[in-house]
Amino acid sequence: MKDKIRIAVIGYGNLGKGVEKAVKQNPDIELQAIFTRRNPADIDSNNSNLVHISKVNEYKEKIDVMILCGGSATDLGEQGPIMAAHFNTIDSFDTHAKIPQYFNKMDSVSKSAKTVSLISTGWDPGLFSLNRLLGQVVLPKGKDYTFWGKGVSQGHSDAIRRIKGVKGGIQYTVPIKETLEKVRNGENADFTTREKHERVCYVVPEEGADLNKIEQEIKNMPNYFVDYNTTVNFISEEELKEKHSGMPHGGFVIRSGKTEGGVNQMMEFSLKLESNPEFTSSVLVAYARAVNRFAKEGRTGAITVLDVPFAYLSPKSGSELRKELL
Amino acid sequence: MKDKIRIAVIGYGNLGKGVEKAVKQNPDIELQAIFTRRNPADIDSNNSNLVHISKVNEYKEKIDVMILCGGSATDLGEQGPIMAAHFNTIDSFDTHAKIPQYFNKMDSVSKSAKTVSLISTGWDPGLFSLNRLLGQVVLPKGKDYTFWGKGVSQGHSDAIRRIKGVKGGIQYTVPIKETLEKVRNGENADFTTREKHERVCYVVPEEGADLNKIEQEIKNMPNYFVDYNTTVNFISEEELKEKHSGMPHGGFVIRSGKTEGGVNQMMEFSLKLESNPEFTSSVLVAYARAVNRFAKEGRTGAITVLDVPFAYLSPKSGSELRKELL
Repeated sequence: MKDKIRIAVIGYGNLGKGVEKAVKQNPDIELQAIFTRRNPADIDSNNSNLVHISKVNEYKEKIDVMILCGGSATDLGEQGPIMAAHFNTIDSFDTHAKIPQYFNKMDSVSKSAKTVSLISTGWDPGLFSLNRLLGQVVLPKGKDYTFWGKGVSQGHSDAIRRIKGVKGGIQYTVPIKETLEKVRNGENADFTTREKHERVCYVVPEEGADLNKIEQEIKNMPNYFVDYNTTVNFISEEELKEKHSGMPHGGFVIRSGKTEGGVNQMMEFSLKLESNPEFTSSVLVAYARAVNRFAKEGRTGAITVLDVPFAYLSPKSGSELRKELL
Repeated sequence: MKDKIRIAVIGYGNLGKGVEKAVKQNPDIELQAIFTRRNPADIDSNNSNLVHISKVNEYKEKIDVMILCGGSATDLGEQGPIMAAHFNTIDSFDTHAKIPQYFNKMDSVSKSAKTVSLISTGWDPGLFSLNRLLGQVVLPKGKDYTFWGKGVSQGHSDAIRRIKGVKGGIQYTVPIKETLEKVRNGENADFTTREKHERVCYVVPEEGADLNKIEQEIKNMPNYFVDYNTTVNFISEEELKEKHSGMPHGGFVIRSGKTEGGVNQMMEFSLKLESNPEFTSSVLVAYARAVNRFAKEGRTGAITVLDVPFAYLSPKSGSELRKELL
């Protein structure tokens, strides 16, 4: 039997917990530790995998791949390069505009340290990026469309919760069906922001708050809501907890193209996820196999999902895969 | 400016003609020749790319990648190894059961000749295989479903045309919508052949033929029709030509899985193609870039789509792709 791939996680939020779950479905992968900035005993004294982050360097020889489960906005920019100096890493860095800069930093650190760092994986960036690329190369004459949802946007939910008089709330991004159908029918038009997605908010107001004022403030918020048709629903705290504590998400990447002579050809990839973080974690764990294999081959530096052959994501051999999947 | 990738084609059927069209949409790729067993002047004296197959060896230094556009049943088993001994090759070998054996043969020839041979690309095997693999690695607890159509099945159309009293005809494979919806709703059931697809035939009978006999013969044909609900429509030769000379196809690969604790997660990839051969050819041309790049890196032997990073399919640099697509 082959040695198991030894992974560890930094950060015990939704993503870290998702990795902990995903490992249970992948018998060739073993979770060695979950590093946290908090006191492990305060989190869960029954979880023997929890280790304080100060001990991470003691694990240098015990971990094949470190999965960085912090957020792009606050953690990864700093944590990524520090960890890549000691470990092979995977992360889900998703601040699109800063990816080139983050890649260069991680590449330089990893090359010096002779490690491999796979950045920006998950589903977007990640599986959606792969499908955008595939669409463009197979159908060079065509258009890409990405729709997100129906799903919870953390950023927009946070924006609602910062409003005065709001006790709690959540925001769903919803793709507009009519536009999705137009794309699928090969119309190849350009659509405005408003035509592609709508925003649906569920808001718990504080007692005595001015509901009309809250609604107007949400609907007119620049960048976040003003360019969309937004619906605001006021609900109770109980209802928020009961009906809106899941983290569903998903979306569609569509390539609508034409081969020569105007022949319509359509490619579509879609996800419908009951748990966005658990799915993202499952993607990270599959890509841990690839990072381990790149490292075993002696490659170093930063890579992305675009650099990884799919065969590297599987525990099966090339001949098994060819027999079963082609 | 980078040198263009020089390709050639063997076989001037639907697939070869599709490659000829696809090259027009890919300015970094240049078509050097289309080799045919027929007399080029008999096919099209205005097409200066047509060359008799007997001259193929004169092109050894002029071609980076040879695209084999013959069929699996009759041509590729023999032609593949002969060509791989002299050229980097791509083919769409699709006799599923014989793929492992064909791979081994191509691998051995290519390794000796220091060439690269990418076998079994297109959409199934090909893009569908990639999506089946992706589904399995990201959601190890789940089920795969592949539906084909609506599209023309060449094998089934041929079977109809062999029946006595049939002058012409075509067969469409049609996925059954209700079953597709059940899969999308996460039912994770097993479905029979009959529940997944139906078969719709358009038949031109010879004058005076026994229509009832033809219909029964089709519906009861073992392997091809007996396990399906089959509809037989009799039409005129004009109608066949007018309404059924396109070659549409498509299909769906769905992975319906669960992350730990029974959380439903769904991945779907689908194609809706007005021209099956032109789309397949477009896939072959994109993969020609990857074969050329593998060869330039000094790799040899047989590979499949599972071994190719998507970045290799694009004429763009890694940094352009990261900036535009992640």
